Amino acid sequence: MAEQTKRRGRPRQLETDARVLAAAADLLREKGPAGVTIEAVAVRSGVARTTIYRRFDSRGELIAAVTGSLVDRPLPPPELPLESKVRWALDQVAAILDDGLGRGGVAAVIADTDPEFSVVLRQALGRRLEDLREQIQADMDHGVVAAQFDPNAVVSLLLGVHLGEVLRAGTPRRGWDDRVVDLVAHALRPT
Amino acid sequence: MAEQTKRRGRPRQLETDARVLAAAADLLREKGPAGVTIEAVAVRSGVARTTIYRRFDSRGELIAAVTGSLVDRPLPPPELPLESKVRWALDQVAAILDDGLGRGGVAAVIADTDPEFSVVLRQALGRRLEDLREQIQADMDHGVVAAQFDPNAVVSLLLGVHLGEVLRAGTPRRGWDDRVVDLVAHALRPT
Repeated sequence: MAEQTKRRGRPRQLETDARVLAAAADLLREKGPAGVTIEAVAVRSGVARTTIYRRFDSRGELIAAVTGSLVDRPLPPPELPLESKVRWALDQVAAILDDGLGRGGVAAVIADTDPEFSVVLRQALGRRLEDLREQIQADMDHGVVAAQFDPNAVVSLLLGVHLGEVLRAGTPRRGWDDRVVDLVAHALRPT
Repeated sequence: MAEQTKRRGRPRQLETDARVLAAAADLLREKGPAGVTIEAVAVRSGVARTTIYRRFDSRGELIAAVTGSLVDRPLPPPELPLESKVRWALDQVAAILDDGLGRGGVAAVIADTDPEFSVVLRQALGRRLEDLREQIQADMDHGVVAAQFDPNAVVSLLLGVHLGEVLRAGTPRRGWDDRVVDLVAHALRPT
């Protein structure tokens, strides 16, 4: 009987965690990090504050969990041709910045309006970008990407080019992604 | 006598304009566009509100004047070698984003927290970037830059790569600019 309760209890706990994280992600996208308080997450998710505090010791821990889930996007399959890899990476960057963190979350980090959030986001994003850097390094080692560059500069470029277009145009203009893939893939191709 | 008053009056008027614009620029950098109100500019500049309203019909007009002045940076001299031009453009982008608009101004446009400011900034920045695009186009016509790319994609890349590094690292890391100049200049060099 005790065993059965435990087995039945686990999915419910996972579901509660998922509801809390989904509510925190919504609030982050809509209001930026200032909107992510335990109180607001409790109201949005319908999960009691005490229950949230049993899962996450602090607002910082909740923010770390939600940013970690938002930046956790798949890397391109290693066997893709260079151009498709560049497109994949640019698509994932756009998904993280626009759909994941949202413009409010991105803006908060750039302006550093919530230093706790900036630190946590940079750690989560940093881990993901380190994986991307390692893949680029491996492609350099295998002669698929020109080995003369700093793979870290390539990562900043992939991350930034979307932001540059957002700053200029609000929403990336029609056909913009094709032209950027062209440019970046050409730059990285070994001569 | 009337003539003399006019002659004496003109420099004073210019000085007043400069004080108003400098105060508005400081407020923009420190507090983002929300901080740029006629009231706050009057307090900061020591120029009376009525005098400010005689120069600028509205807050929108004042913001247009100050953003115009902040993005008005020189283009690279046309005769510079490609690598120096790329470095020049990246330096000016950093100056506009970090010292001119400030992170608060940039963040406000990305999150679109003040739509009036977003529109005005994009117009001012757009005019300046259009000049840069024309220079890149001319370099393509002269065989200095690879002609196969969309010059607009090159502009977004130059604008964005600094933002990508700011999002990742807060402040661009040591030696970062050299590695990015390397990468971008290589990408643009005709084969």
